[in-house]
Amino acid sequence: MAVYTEISNDELAAFVAAYDIGTVTSLKGIAEGVENSNFLLTTDRATYILTLYEKRVAEPDLPFFLGLMEHLAERGIACPLPLRSRDGRALHRLAGRPAAIITFLDGMWPKRIHPFHCRELGAALARLHLAGSDFPMRRDNDLSLGGWQQIFGRCRDDADRVMPGLSDAVARELAGLEAVWPAALPTGVIHADLFPDNVFFIGETLTGLIDFYFACTDAFAYDLAICLNAWCFEPDGAFNVTKARLMLASYRRVRPFSTAELAALPILARGAALRFLLTRLFDWLNHPPGAFVKPKDPLEYWHKLRFHQGVAGPGAYGLD
Amino acid sequence: MAVYTEISNDELAAFVAAYDIGTVTSLKGIAEGVENSNFLLTTDRATYILTLYEKRVAEPDLPFFLGLMEHLAERGIACPLPLRSRDGRALHRLAGRPAAIITFLDGMWPKRIHPFHCRELGAALARLHLAGSDFPMRRDNDLSLGGWQQIFGRCRDDADRVMPGLSDAVARELAGLEAVWPAALPTGVIHADLFPDNVFFIGETLTGLIDFYFACTDAFAYDLAICLNAWCFEPDGAFNVTKARLMLASYRRVRPFSTAELAALPILARGAALRFLLTRLFDWLNHPPGAFVKPKDPLEYWHKLRFHQGVAGPGAYGLD
Repeated sequence: MAVYTEISNDELAAFVAAYDIGTVTSLKGIAEGVENSNFLLTTDRATYILTLYEKRVAEPDLPFFLGLMEHLAERGIACPLPLRSRDGRALHRLAGRPAAIITFLDGMWPKRIHPFHCRELGAALARLHLAGSDFPMRRDNDLSLGGWQQIFGRCRDDADRVMPGLSDAVARELAGLEAVWPAALPTGVIHADLFPDNVFFIGETLTGLIDFYFACTDAFAYDLAICLNAWCFEPDGAFNVTKARLMLASYRRVRPFSTAELAALPILARGAALRFLLTRLFDWLNHPPGAFVKPKDPLEYWHKLRFHQGVAGPGAYGLD
Repeated sequence: MAVYTEISNDELAAFVAAYDIGTVTSLKGIAEGVENSNFLLTTDRATYILTLYEKRVAEPDLPFFLGLMEHLAERGIACPLPLRSRDGRALHRLAGRPAAIITFLDGMWPKRIHPFHCRELGAALARLHLAGSDFPMRRDNDLSLGGWQQIFGRCRDDADRVMPGLSDAVARELAGLEAVWPAALPTGVIHADLFPDNVFFIGETLTGLIDFYFACTDAFAYDLAICLNAWCFEPDGAFNVTKARLMLASYRRVRPFSTAELAALPILARGAALRFLLTRLFDWLNHPPGAFVKPKDPLEYWHKLRFHQGVAGPGAYGLD
């Protein structure tokens, strides 16, 4: 659930006057984005998204995120384009916070995943990876192995409250992944959080990718592994190999991947499952009692991790 | 904070197809309305508000609320117009709840109240009262004297936790108001919740009145008393007689009020203050600990009540 920083109308009018987008006719807080305050901003010319960056997004990272969106949008990726004000800047301040106006994207995120969603997503992810390949900035993935160790260190003593034996199981998995984590895969900008609520569709057409605030520099195939976990399991926990095959095949048609990337998929999928298991575990153990926002179930990702531990090879994901 | 019922895209498409408003291009939950789930619904033709009525709004009251908005909008009041689907109905069901699509109103609610806001509000309230005078339906005000007694019965034992002596003070005020509450004032449809967040402006122009889900049949002057409390006190608690004078004078230019209405204002203002004191007190004592939504301070309305207890007559509100 988003935070809603209150913006006075005078402050807003002054802020918008720095841009060439007309005058404000409406501003409504929207329930989109977990880390920031997002508003639907309407002017007499068009509708935009106004984002105030709350404390969970590190301010020094904002030029990377905004620069990346601009880079991708200019290369035809259906992602928000940060607007530049008349003085050329995309990043401003409003209500005491870093703030940006980005373009509004049509479409709705799919609440129920059909195979065609996975097919479209695979191609869009590959296009994103290609379009980002000449983006000059770099941001390390702070939610890779080192980050997992840190988060685990802060919740390992309480992990068994969620499931008996979870703490030891996670410790073993972490150690195992450290020993075999692939270091030399093709690398570039990845989205790193491309869950269904960050992907818009109208009918069967993918119309938008949003929320680039976990984007970083890491292995392309790790992004695919995150998507395998987020899109190819059914609500009952079963892995849907048809969806996985469609996603990977349509990705590969746009950006062919190497034998090494293919071979690494099971390990990457375990790592991706562990990453969300750990962040959800931390949120689960640290949310205030009775809070409005119910944290997501960490064990959903424990079950996904168990699935990937059991696969014989990348063929389990429908690839030949 | 609004509730967000999740709507599947297929359900939404089928729902919207019953109307003649084009096809859906976007749906975003918005932070507007405390009692319902509100969404900004965009089609290839226009933008609308989709409301799902959650359990705090009584379903049998919905024809009154929707019929009233239609009645007022047809008479030129800047309020949402409920759309009728092709079969002529304004009230439908979606995601297991009563649902309606209403028109989108431009404008923003004022976060800081200037005197011109009060001037515009007074005239708009009078126009609303006149436009509603031939509305044929009736809805008793369940948050008048009888309702206050009920709410107080459910929180009197705990009231002193909020302020020592509050329980006795409220009991005395309730008894006092019951003895003198005016019974024969001009009556009709009132909004009954016209706080700043329910009134939209662009610049100095009032562009919309929203959230008619407390509307009922009661004394017109009681609606004015609610607005006096909601708009004419400064954040530091001081009563701003300039704002009150502007509000009442501009109201009176559109709908002149009788000597009896004028004379009743201090009592009505005490009642209006007690009404919000009691509902806030109840919410304060009954919200889950650590909840995301911080309940509003009931004592804000205790101080307003104290002010009105001390006035010598309606002259205190700037009227001559």
